[in-house]
Amino acid sequence: MSITKGRVTIPTNLDVVPETIELMNRWGADAIRDCDGTEFPKELIMTGAKIYATYYTTRKDNEWAKANPDEVQQCYVMTAFYTAVESELLIPLMKGISKELMMVNTRDDRKRWWEVIDRSTGEVVSVDHWEYDEEKGCVIVHDAIPFHEYTVSFLAYIIWDPVHMYNAVTNNWKNFEHQITFDVRQPKTHKYSMERLRNYCAAHPYVNVIRYTTFFHQFTLMFDELKREKYVDWYGYSASVSPYILEQFEKEAGYVFRPEYIIDQGYYNNQYRVPSKEFKDFQAFQRREVARLAKEMVDITHECGKEAMMFLGDHWIGTEPFMEEFATIGLDAVVGSVGNGSTLRLISDIEGVKYTEGRFLPYFFPDTFHEGGDPVKEAKENWITARRAILRKPIDRIGYGGYLKLTLDFPEFLDYVESVCNEFRELYANTKDTIPYCVKKVAVLNSWGKMRSWGCHMVHHALYQKQNYSYAGIIEALSGAPFDVSFISFDDILADRKILKDLDVIINVGDGDTAHTGGSIWENPDISSAIRAFVYSGGGFIGVGEPSGHQFQGHYIQLADMLGVEKETGFTLNYDKYNWEEHPDHFILADTIKTVDFGEGKKNIFAYEGTEILVQQEKEVQMAVHEFGRGRCVYISGLPYSFENSRILYRSILWSTHGEEELHQWFSSNFNVEVHAYVKNGKFCVVNNTYENQKTVVYRGDGSSFSLEMEANEIKWYNI
Amino acid sequence: MSITKGRVTIPTNLDVVPETIELMNRWGADAIRDCDGTEFPKELIMTGAKIYATYYTTRKDNEWAKANPDEVQQCYVMTAFYTAVESELLIPLMKGISKELMMVNTRDDRKRWWEVIDRSTGEVVSVDHWEYDEEKGCVIVHDAIPFHEYTVSFLAYIIWDPVHMYNAVTNNWKNFEHQITFDVRQPKTHKYSMERLRNYCAAHPYVNVIRYTTFFHQFTLMFDELKREKYVDWYGYSASVSPYILEQFEKEAGYVFRPEYIIDQGYYNNQYRVPSKEFKDFQAFQRREVARLAKEMVDITHECGKEAMMFLGDHWIGTEPFMEEFATIGLDAVVGSVGNGSTLRLISDIEGVKYTEGRFLPYFFPDTFHEGGDPVKEAKENWITARRAILRKPIDRIGYGGYLKLTLDFPEFLDYVESVCNEFRELYANTKDTIPYCVKKVAVLNSWGKMRSWGCHMVHHALYQKQNYSYAGIIEALSGAPFDVSFISFDDILADRKILKDLDVIINVGDGDTAHTGGSIWENPDISSAIRAFVYSGGGFIGVGEPSGHQFQGHYIQLADMLGVEKETGFTLNYDKYNWEEHPDHFILADTIKTVDFGEGKKNIFAYEGTEILVQQEKEVQMAVHEFGRGRCVYISGLPYSFENSRILYRSILWSTHGEEELHQWFSSNFNVEVHAYVKNGKFCVVNNTYENQKTVVYRGDGSSFSLEMEANEIKWYNI
Repeated sequence: MSITKGRVTIPTNLDVVPETIELMNRWGADAIRDCDGTEFPKELIMTGAKIYATYYTTRKDNEWAKANPDEVQQCYVMTAFYTAVESELLIPLMKGISKELMMVNTRDDRKRWWEVIDRSTGEVVSVDHWEYDEEKGCVIVHDAIPFHEYTVSFLAYIIWDPVHMYNAVTNNWKNFEHQITFDVRQPKTHKYSMERLRNYCAAHPYVNVIRYTTFFHQFTLMFDELKREKYVDWYGYSASVSPYILEQFEKEAGYVFRPEYIIDQGYYNNQYRVPSKEFKDFQAFQRREVARLAKEMVDITHECGKEAMMFLGDHWIGTEPFMEEFATIGLDAVVGSVGNGSTLRLISDIEGVKYTEGRFLPYFFPDTFHEGGDPVKEAKENWITARRAILRKPIDRIGYGGYLKLTLDFPEFLDYVESVCNEFRELYANTKDTIPYCVKKVAVLNSWGKMRSWGCHMVHHALYQKQNYSYAGIIEALSGAPFDVSFISFDDILADRKILKDLDVIINVGDGDTAHTGGSIWENPDISSAIRAFVYSGGGFIGVGEPSGHQFQGHYIQLADMLGVEKETGFTLNYDKYNWEEHPDHFILADTIKTVDFGEGKKNIFAYEGTEILVQQEKEVQMAVHEFGRGRCVYISGLPYSFENSRILYRSILWSTHGEEELHQWFSSNFNVEVHAYVKNGKFCVVNNTYENQKTVVYRGDGSSFSLEMEANEIKWYNI
Repeated sequence: MSITKGRVTIPTNLDVVPETIELMNRWGADAIRDCDGTEFPKELIMTGAKIYATYYTTRKDNEWAKANPDEVQQCYVMTAFYTAVESELLIPLMKGISKELMMVNTRDDRKRWWEVIDRSTGEVVSVDHWEYDEEKGCVIVHDAIPFHEYTVSFLAYIIWDPVHMYNAVTNNWKNFEHQITFDVRQPKTHKYSMERLRNYCAAHPYVNVIRYTTFFHQFTLMFDELKREKYVDWYGYSASVSPYILEQFEKEAGYVFRPEYIIDQGYYNNQYRVPSKEFKDFQAFQRREVARLAKEMVDITHECGKEAMMFLGDHWIGTEPFMEEFATIGLDAVVGSVGNGSTLRLISDIEGVKYTEGRFLPYFFPDTFHEGGDPVKEAKENWITARRAILRKPIDRIGYGGYLKLTLDFPEFLDYVESVCNEFRELYANTKDTIPYCVKKVAVLNSWGKMRSWGCHMVHHALYQKQNYSYAGIIEALSGAPFDVSFISFDDILADRKILKDLDVIINVGDGDTAHTGGSIWENPDISSAIRAFVYSGGGFIGVGEPSGHQFQGHYIQLADMLGVEKETGFTLNYDKYNWEEHPDHFILADTIKTVDFGEGKKNIFAYEGTEILVQQEKEVQMAVHEFGRGRCVYISGLPYSFENSRILYRSILWSTHGEEELHQWFSSNFNVEVHAYVKNGKFCVVNNTYENQKTVVYRGDGSSFSLEMEANEIKWYNI
């Protein structure tokens, strides 16, 4: 592998063939991806580069979809809540949902697959007490109890592929046909889809890599009547159901399926919900079935002499790249869009594929590439943010998407991408086949564990939300930090609490009574005692937000004894609280240069006697530390991602694991600069994460140090 | 009754007899209260004023207490939480508790009256698995499960009266004996106490009024080893127990008593806790028993030709002045300390006594009456704050406490009190025997109802707390507002939902999952449907904080459909939220002159489509309105007490009840000024609540108006 060629994918179009070839040479690209809807030019085939072709398994064949309306993909939907004001209640199913997107499934047995629920009690309304009026589009509840609330859970066909709809609406497309989805798991479509795939392969001999943009189940994405996004869940399982597969699920699970297992009170088992047994069963069923069917397609792809690559974003449902079934699919590669460090590691940490590829921003679209646009700025931000994570666990390839033509008027951008490609190749060469030096083993503990590795606190691809950026910041900081990071679940501990023995520190981050902190799992003493035992015998624990937050037996923070902090919920207002002294000189805060930014922080946290408060604001504790047996705990109210906060987390991890002495190993005194060592390869690098010059003192693994001045964004490589 | 004499009580001492007589004349005082520990001068008896004598039923007789250690008052105490780290766990009972205050009761059967609980599971540890080591002062748990948490609930004797201790510690008393409590309900002490009372009456013939400062049960007040206040609950029932009465309770309740009924996970059933059935049973038992015994004392008092007056502050336990048993005691009067409008009405709204009396601030103590002190300022603030409430429901008398001598160097203070006394008498004359004009009937709905009238959100006498001032502000605003205010409980609605028919608007104010908002009661559809029916048919609803907040069946705010707002707990982050437009021109906000102060406010509240947002801050709704059927709802995130916020509440009540047209009746355009009408008496007053001059337009009941300039604090009386 050369520093000047390889590991880069470039998009192309018919109108920029010579320019593509020129840029391939400049960027060292060795793969070309087609743009949706174009034919492929011969000159490019001649370059010898690998050629990727986007393939849509579930759409772009309306002829088939229209001929087989019973096998259109289905989605479980809950209506809004409707309050009865008399004994008859009409519930319009499609109110608030785009009728272009969905159509009520009246084909299957409604009384079997729908559910009307009295939400004032949680009880299912007997099927004798309601009917569906197709003309009105309403479920009519008879014998409703006045002023009880009701919902209807029903099946709808997805008659417009939601991603197609998103693209069409966003780009204001005119004069096109809505692409109807179809469900590859249904018998007729299954058979047809395999033939269709073989035909496609045969018709596209020049294609080396089938890039499955939609494999066969899509995340949940709904639009309202104004075609505005209504609901999005990157990890949603509700848009991949049908009576056909649910009957199979019933057989496997050994109990009767209820729509509520998917509907979940309208919360659709999103990642904040502590998952029910039934939902976990359903996910496991989907993983096995999806892997089996995906493997069929991959096998065909291989038979046809091509590689199979999966686009990550749309495919969580069932494929679940961090779960063990994934490797059985036999995919050659995964490609995904890189928004930040966490999304980078969503891709690069996937095992069971030959290579991973990151698609970098900006897309070559007119929203960035217009007069006055600053694509270099976007590209820099994206690259610098992701680079931290690449240095921990590299993807194998990088690439770009969109219309190459648009970039040609931005020579500085072309130069910058060239430098990125070279920097990536150098980085890759220096880091390959080794695990970078890890200071500590860190586990993020929540209800999902491995399944939501790097994606916990992420509702959709790197989406900022006021309610979670203060928690997602922890994950983002970890994505580029020198730790061996794993994601473990409460179930993992219940299955074998010895897994904790391998860890240095456990992090529990999120709001109380969510899956991120565990909710009612804390009523299980096997969990609380396992964590306490771990810490008591010397482990570290970092709790962020409302760690172990769940009201039970005299505590809101269930590990309050260990963490040394508790939440004032009103129940303890009678207790006087005297411990408010701050200890700003603590090891953890040593590098801070301004008031710590806790993001949304937390109100009402107080410290027990014996707890050392690092920061309190108006008698609300934002950061505190507490020793428990031989172990140490750190409480932080929230920690949005920044270089300074990343350092705070770094020091918290070291302090909590009695690792203060290890601070000056592969370390930069300036928190804007980071050091990563690849001991096996005899290399280490120093990387300036900012857009300004930086001065720092760099410490080597043996504690020796040297001063260094770095240019903006610079990465410097050294031999050990 | 004259405007210049009567309705005022003055404190005195031996060293200020002539000055007392002079001030009695100036202030028009017609009652004199003795100071603790003094003899009473004859010159004062000659004045013809009523003479109050402070009487302590449960202390100031250490001879008795020491002779009867088994009848010292007892308290249920829970230790802190102790985590087992091996199979044996030592739990020190008195750690964190002043040993001068309490002593472990080892006299009664520990295995019967104590409880060791595994707080990791909530299970009671079998009595075979623990023992008490008296020498170590520890419960030793055998066969403890490592890393489970344990607590011990035990009985302790209160060997130093907590109020005596408070006074001694606060005032740094030296060389005195700790006053030991004794339990008047125990057989020997009961008999003795009645004789003691008769003896006291006989020995104090000049006394007209026995002022029971401690009747016989005190609120919960604990101190730690450093004699700092550790726990205080004005409404606490834990310091009034003993095996003797608990066995009686068992007989009445028909089930076995458990310490946990009082201990309540260490929360001691404080007013934030949704009360359990067992605690409500226990309160009812105490009310009946306490009323019965108190009546015995009152009867003796009457037999001896004296009046019986109860000091409110220390006596909630069992007397419960707002419950029906109270009137059966036959007390002549209640006196209490006035901290603000809410505490005024805690006194003035009590029924079943001949008169009520408010003790005003400042106490004549050196902390205020020293060189450089400003007692006039304190007096003004106290009087002006309380006056609002007096104008709605007057107390019958006012008074002061402390050392009269200290006031003599503050002639402006003496003048000011004179003006207050005159103002009070005029006010009383103008308002007596009538109910002031009430614009609307308002009910505050919570788990306690009538029992915590005016005292809900009050942990101890007018105590400010960061966690509740934003809610207590609603109660304080109501205390002086022209509404017919009642306090109702969820149980009241369950018993007879028709009680709602008499109301115009319901207010539910507090944090979710507390007794102030109801917690799991919302899983009972009879509650939610009753409230919805009330509003749907035209009632108003004002929710403050997290009204009806409890996670259940797809809602956190259980009345979200009605209120039009919901809390983002993470479970609905997947749903897009488009309704953020503010409507600052709403009727409710018409008089605001600055950004509304929501106090602590609330994070994460969002509005449904169709809800009108009045104020949102960074996409967190602070105030919104929503129509539901013919009714109207107002959501407010918090509303600390201020004149401006009081106006916001006033307008919220009017708007929610379709009362916009009634605004200009007995109304002041300037919210610093209020108008109260006493139609039956043909009087109305205009009152300036501020310390500055004010201009306003005053509207009479017929809507006619006049402009008015008022001096600071002024009250003006008019004939209708």
